[in-house]
Amino acid sequence: MPKKLTSRSEDYSKWYNELVVRADLAENSAVRGCMIIKPYGYAIWEKMKEELDKKFKATGHQNAYFPLFVPKSLFEAEEKNAEGFAKECAVVTHYRLKNNPDEAGKLMVDPEAKLEEELVVRPTSEAIIWNTYKNWIQSYRDLPILINQWANVVRWEMRTRLFLRTAEFLWQEGHTAHATEQEAQDETLLINNLYADFVENFMAIPVIKGVKTESERFAGAVDTHCIEALMQDGKALQAGTSHFLGQNFAKAFDVKFATSEGGLDHVWATSWGVSTRLMGALIMTHSDDHGLVLPPKLAPIQVVIVPIYKGKEQLEAIGQVAQKIKKQLLNAGVSVKFDDRDNVKPGFKFNDYELKGVPLRIAIGPKDLEKGQVEVARRDTLTKSFIPQSELIDHITTTLADMQDTLFENAIRFRDEHITPVDDFTAFQRVLEEKGGFIAAHWDGTKATEEAIKKTTKATIRCIPYDAQAEEGKCVFSGQPSTQRVLFAKAY
Amino acid sequence: MPKKLTSRSEDYSKWYNELVVRADLAENSAVRGCMIIKPYGYAIWEKMKEELDKKFKATGHQNAYFPLFVPKSLFEAEEKNAEGFAKECAVVTHYRLKNNPDEAGKLMVDPEAKLEEELVVRPTSEAIIWNTYKNWIQSYRDLPILINQWANVVRWEMRTRLFLRTAEFLWQEGHTAHATEQEAQDETLLINNLYADFVENFMAIPVIKGVKTESERFAGAVDTHCIEALMQDGKALQAGTSHFLGQNFAKAFDVKFATSEGGLDHVWATSWGVSTRLMGALIMTHSDDHGLVLPPKLAPIQVVIVPIYKGKEQLEAIGQVAQKIKKQLLNAGVSVKFDDRDNVKPGFKFNDYELKGVPLRIAIGPKDLEKGQVEVARRDTLTKSFIPQSELIDHITTTLADMQDTLFENAIRFRDEHITPVDDFTAFQRVLEEKGGFIAAHWDGTKATEEAIKKTTKATIRCIPYDAQAEEGKCVFSGQPSTQRVLFAKAY
Repeated sequence: MPKKLTSRSEDYSKWYNELVVRADLAENSAVRGCMIIKPYGYAIWEKMKEELDKKFKATGHQNAYFPLFVPKSLFEAEEKNAEGFAKECAVVTHYRLKNNPDEAGKLMVDPEAKLEEELVVRPTSEAIIWNTYKNWIQSYRDLPILINQWANVVRWEMRTRLFLRTAEFLWQEGHTAHATEQEAQDETLLINNLYADFVENFMAIPVIKGVKTESERFAGAVDTHCIEALMQDGKALQAGTSHFLGQNFAKAFDVKFATSEGGLDHVWATSWGVSTRLMGALIMTHSDDHGLVLPPKLAPIQVVIVPIYKGKEQLEAIGQVAQKIKKQLLNAGVSVKFDDRDNVKPGFKFNDYELKGVPLRIAIGPKDLEKGQVEVARRDTLTKSFIPQSELIDHITTTLADMQDTLFENAIRFRDEHITPVDDFTAFQRVLEEKGGFIAAHWDGTKATEEAIKKTTKATIRCIPYDAQAEEGKCVFSGQPSTQRVLFAKAY
Repeated sequence: MPKKLTSRSEDYSKWYNELVVRADLAENSAVRGCMIIKPYGYAIWEKMKEELDKKFKATGHQNAYFPLFVPKSLFEAEEKNAEGFAKECAVVTHYRLKNNPDEAGKLMVDPEAKLEEELVVRPTSEAIIWNTYKNWIQSYRDLPILINQWANVVRWEMRTRLFLRTAEFLWQEGHTAHATEQEAQDETLLINNLYADFVENFMAIPVIKGVKTESERFAGAVDTHCIEALMQDGKALQAGTSHFLGQNFAKAFDVKFATSEGGLDHVWATSWGVSTRLMGALIMTHSDDHGLVLPPKLAPIQVVIVPIYKGKEQLEAIGQVAQKIKKQLLNAGVSVKFDDRDNVKPGFKFNDYELKGVPLRIAIGPKDLEKGQVEVARRDTLTKSFIPQSELIDHITTTLADMQDTLFENAIRFRDEHITPVDDFTAFQRVLEEKGGFIAAHWDGTKATEEAIKKTTKATIRCIPYDAQAEEGKCVFSGQPSTQRVLFAKAY
C-alpha cells in the first residue's frame, strides 16, 4: 500500500502539496516556479475552460490572440500598470544563442544579438491590447469590442506553489472597450456575476461578490470587482476579478472615438480574468485526508468500475456485466472507466481512485453477479451501498446530481460558519488566530488603517461585499466612524 | 466602395497580405514578427483545434501543459535539436525591470536581476518534456505515454509573414513515448495519416504524404513524415509533420525503462505538430480575387442573410422572414447571421461577406417576399439563384455539403495538374519557372545533389511520397542511378 497523505490537521500546506502531486494533477518543473500540468489535472482545467468559454460566447464575447511579448515602452505608457506588473517579470534581451567557443557542446548568449528594445513576457495584456485597439476604434460604430483571450502569462513570483502561485500560469483575460461609462460598468458587473455563477454552480464553490479597496485594486483599474472563496484552513482565496478601467488605458494609449453625438471621447474599458489558480480553490474547498474530492460536473472520470475476481473466468463474467453498465452509463452522458488492470489489486485501485477524487466507484465481485447487484461507493461521504443492476443507471445519475449539490451545500455551510462579526481589535486578532475565516468588521475607509491591520495580523480586506448592509459603527482598529462592515481574512 | 484587393495574377504575395488583413483574419503587432489573430481568424483556428483535438482524443491521446521556458542546459542535451532550434530564439536573461533613475517614467532592465541560467522561450518542447518523462517512466507498465499540448512557441525568424512564418505562433505538439521501435513507428504513421485526413476532409486541402530527406528532417529526428500541400501560385507548403525520434531524446536525457522481459532499454519516441500556418494553407488553396473562400466545415458563419429594403416597414416584413429562416437553419445545424445594420448599404455587405468567405449569402427584397422566394449566392462559384422558401433549408444544407466537396475536388484537380514528371535538368528549371508545382524527378539520394539543386533553383525535395512507384532512372542533376522519383518544389 502506498503511503498515506499527510492529514490536513497535521499540516494543511503539506497535505495540499502532496495531494496535487499524488493525485497526478501537477508537478514542479526544471524551470523555477513553472509547473507541469499533468493530463489528469489538465482534463479538469479543460472542463472549466469549456464551460467558461460557452458562457463568454453566450454573452457576446469572441476569442482572439495577442502577442506573448510586450515591448518595454508600451508598459511605460500606463504608469500604475507598469508599477504593478512590469517589475517582476521575465525580460527577453537577446534573440540568439551561439556555440560557446570555450566549451564544446555548450551554448551561450550571442552578445551580437541584443534586442534594441527589451521585450517583457506578458504578465497581463492591457498594454499590448490597448495599443492595438487604438487602430481598431474610430467611431462609436466600432464599439463595443468584447474580446477574450486564453493564454499563458508570466509573473516572476519569489515564492511559488503549484496552481496557487506559479511564475507561468494559464488564464483567460477579457478586454472590452465601450462608448459609455455605464456600459463598461455593466460589463464589469456582468462578468463578475458570470464568474460567481460558474464557480458556484459548476465548481460547487460558494463565493462572496464584492469590490476591492484601493490598495487591493488591479494596477491601472478604477475599481476591481472580485469573487472571494474560503478554503478549509480558514484562508480566503481570490477566485476571479473583473476590473472597471475607466478611461485610464484609453488615455495612456490615446484611444478616442467619434461619439454618436458628433463629439470625441476617450473609450471606456474593462478587463477580467480567472486562472489555473481556480484548481487550487477546487482542491482546497472539497478535498479530504483521502485525497481529491471532485464535483461531478468537472470530474474527468465520473464513475470507475473495479472488478473483484480470482482467475480469468471470473474476470470474464464480471467484464461482461461491467461493459454493459459502461455502455448504459455512456449513453446516459456519464463518463466512465472500466479498470481491468491485472497487475494491481482492487485495494490499490480503490485508494488510487479515492486519491484522484473519482465521484463514484462501482465494485463487482462474483457474489454480486449471483445477486444481480453491484457495490457503489460514494467519494464525498465514503459510504457504500449495494444497488440492484436494474436500478443502477438511475441511482448513478441521481447520486451524481446529489453529490454536486451536497458538496456545494457543505461548502456554503462551512463558509457561513466562518464569517464572524467582530467589534473590537482583540477579538479580531483572536478570531483570526483561533478560528480563521472571514471577519466582518467596521473599517474607517483609510489606507493607513488597512495597512496597519495587515502589518499587525497579516489579514487584508478581501472585499466590500455587494450585499453589505448599511450599519453605523466604529472602525475595529481606529475607532473612527464607519457605515458598513467589510470582510477581512488572511488569504492565499 | 472599398478598394479592390490586388489580384493574384498581379502580385500573389501582395494579394495574400491584403486578404489576411482585410478579411479580418490577422494583423501585425507592435512586436516584430508577432501577429495578432483577430476574432474572425481565431474563430476559424478554433474550429480546426476542436476537430483535431477530437481526433487526438479518439486515438487515445491526452492533453497536458509544460513550461514556456526551457533552461539553456536542457537544450544542450540533444545536440542536433540544439543546433536546429536553440539558435534563433528569444532568450530571457533577467527577471526584473526597475525605474530608470536618469529618465522619469522610463523603465530599464535591473542588472541585479540577472538569471543564473538563461531561459529560452520554447521553440519546441522536446527538451523540457523528455527531461520530465525521465521521472515518469520506470517500467514498460508506464508506457506508452501519449500526450499532446496546445501552446504558443517562438522562433526568431528574420523574414515573417502573417500565419506562414511568424516569430510567435500557436500550435499543438504531440510527444509520445513507447516501449518498442515498432510502436513508435506506428504512432508516427498514425498521426501523419490523421493529419492528412483532417486537412483533406475538414479543410478540403489535398496533401501528399511522404517522408523527408535527411536535410529537411526535424533536428533530432530519425525520420520526419509530412503532408505537403500545393498553393495556387505553384509553391508547396508543409502542412504538418510527424517525427520518429528513435531513441535520440531518451539517450540525451537518459530515459530507460524495465522491459517486460526483465531487461533495461531506452524509450522510443515520436513528436508531431501542426500550427496556425495551416491558416495560410487554407487561404492560399481556396481563395480568389474577391477574397477568402472557406470550406463550410470551418466557416464561422456559414450563411449570412442580407435584407434589401427601403424604409422601416419593408425591413420589418423582411426581418420576420429572415428570423424564421435563421431559426430553421440553426435547427438544421447551420451557423447563420442576419445582418440588419442600417448604416451600410447591401452592396457594401455583399462585398464584405465575399471578402470574408462566408459560403452562402441569402438576399431578401420586397419582391422576393411577394414571390415566396429568396436569392442565394454561392461564394465559391459566385453564382446566384432564386430558391422558393419552402425548399430553402434543404437547398442550403445540400449546397454547403456540395461546396465542401467541390472545393476539395478543384484543389485536387489543380494539384494533380501541377505534378510534372521531368527527366532532365533543363526541363526541371523550365517547369519550375514557367509552371511551378511539384516536379517528380529522379534523385541520386545524395545531400550534395539536393544542395546543388536547391542552390541553383531554390527548389527543395518536399518529400519522398509514400506511394512512389519503384522505377529505374537517372538523377535529374547528376545522372547517377535512382530507383524512384521524389517531389521537388519551391516552398513556403
